[in-house]
Amino acid sequence: MHFTSERRLDDGVLEREFTLGEIPGILWTPGSASAPVPLILLGHPGGLPKMYPRLAARARHTVAQGYAAATIELPGGGDRPRLADVEAARADLRRALQAGEPVDDGIVDRLVLPLVDRAVPEWQATLDALLALPGIDGPVGFAGGVIAIGVRLAVVEPRIAAAALFAGSFVPRSMFEEARQVTIPLLVLLQWDDEGNDRQLALDLFDAFGSKEKTLHANMGGHTGIPAFEGDDGNRFFGRHLK
Amino acid sequence: MHFTSERRLDDGVLEREFTLGEIPGILWTPGSASAPVPLILLGHPGGLPKMYPRLAARARHTVAQGYAAATIELPGGGDRPRLADVEAARADLRRALQAGEPVDDGIVDRLVLPLVDRAVPEWQATLDALLALPGIDGPVGFAGGVIAIGVRLAVVEPRIAAAALFAGSFVPRSMFEEARQVTIPLLVLLQWDDEGNDRQLALDLFDAFGSKEKTLHANMGGHTGIPAFEGDDGNRFFGRHLK
Repeated sequence: MHFTSERRLDDGVLEREFTLGEIPGILWTPGSASAPVPLILLGHPGGLPKMYPRLAARARHTVAQGYAAATIELPGGGDRPRLADVEAARADLRRALQAGEPVDDGIVDRLVLPLVDRAVPEWQATLDALLALPGIDGPVGFAGGVIAIGVRLAVVEPRIAAAALFAGSFVPRSMFEEARQVTIPLLVLLQWDDEGNDRQLALDLFDAFGSKEKTLHANMGGHTGIPAFEGDDGNRFFGRHLK
Repeated sequence: MHFTSERRLDDGVLEREFTLGEIPGILWTPGSASAPVPLILLGHPGGLPKMYPRLAARARHTVAQGYAAATIELPGGGDRPRLADVEAARADLRRALQAGEPVDDGIVDRLVLPLVDRAVPEWQATLDALLALPGIDGPVGFAGGVIAIGVRLAVVEPRIAAAALFAGSFVPRSMFEEARQVTIPLLVLLQWDDEGNDRQLALDLFDAFGSKEKTLHANMGGHTGIPAFEGDDGNRFFGRHLK
């Protein structure tokens, strides 16, 4: 892990860009030295440069509650080399949604499974590197999307102790068996009238999770309209499980 | 409204039992004199004597956040005269649930509509009396069940500014049109694996509500297993809308 830039935000939060091999990422930590803090990984749909304003806002909110926050670019996202198979599936998905057609399982599998297979080991390598830094400690939370990546991480990565998952993207039916293996506490966010998402699939996925403590929060406002108060709810959720 | 008893709980909260005509009720107010506080009506499934411990806990939590809290006995509940029509429908519902049969709309209508028709004017008369007391002020919230009563109140009673509804009991399909007329902010609580409740009906009802701000919180734990943190979430919801 190499830090490539460092700056202090106006609220004192330290923001450092890094690369891990070819993967770019950002780490946000509390402004003043303190006892080691738990880490929350911020998931997103890919495209760090475009997502930066929203991610930085989430990160500052998170760090203000006494955590470190970090994110990495998705395979094929932002400035990383495109993934031809994923791009082709994404085009098919867009066509189906624009035509108002049902999204068939084949498209979802071709879009999501290669991303999950590639992204999860990258998140795990990032975790190795971040937890070796002074000032960051376990346990670790995962917050956001791509939800299928969060599901796989929750199953295979024992350092993830709780997850706040954004049910805002398709999950392959073949991953429902993995969802049943998830046992960590979950907060699942659903935007009720998210046009590019499948509400029933999200409800089925919530039902499938094996966790004894799982909470669903559904709100109005479309895909990007998650109310600000959900940020507070997410911090309280992690407060119950990471501290 | 006649106060029939008054006592101070160990946290200083003033608890007063009252009667309004033949309706028994309880009012909880802050221990020390203060500026007038908003009022939250605590809904419940009927049977004040049996429900008292849980209602008092909810009330103390509510008053600690700077509200007054009040509840009244349901028509036919607790020590009030039984309602023969409602009791007959309740027996039919119990039979259907025990036999694992689907609950037909006729039973739900016979069970719930008479309760709603009788209870709502009683809650409104209670509101008249409570808001005439010193130390209590609008706006007013409604929290709990019977959810069908909360729906009707939200439509017909303009003093109700926000409602946290417990989707733990059946709602007549004929009331979905009323649900579409609800426009106040809503927090809807659903216990995902509530055996005596219809999850799909609760989700359909949430979908039907006309409110621009509506949030669904679904949790595990059965009908009476609402997690303690939902009490805090409810207080924050009312804090956003009543203060």
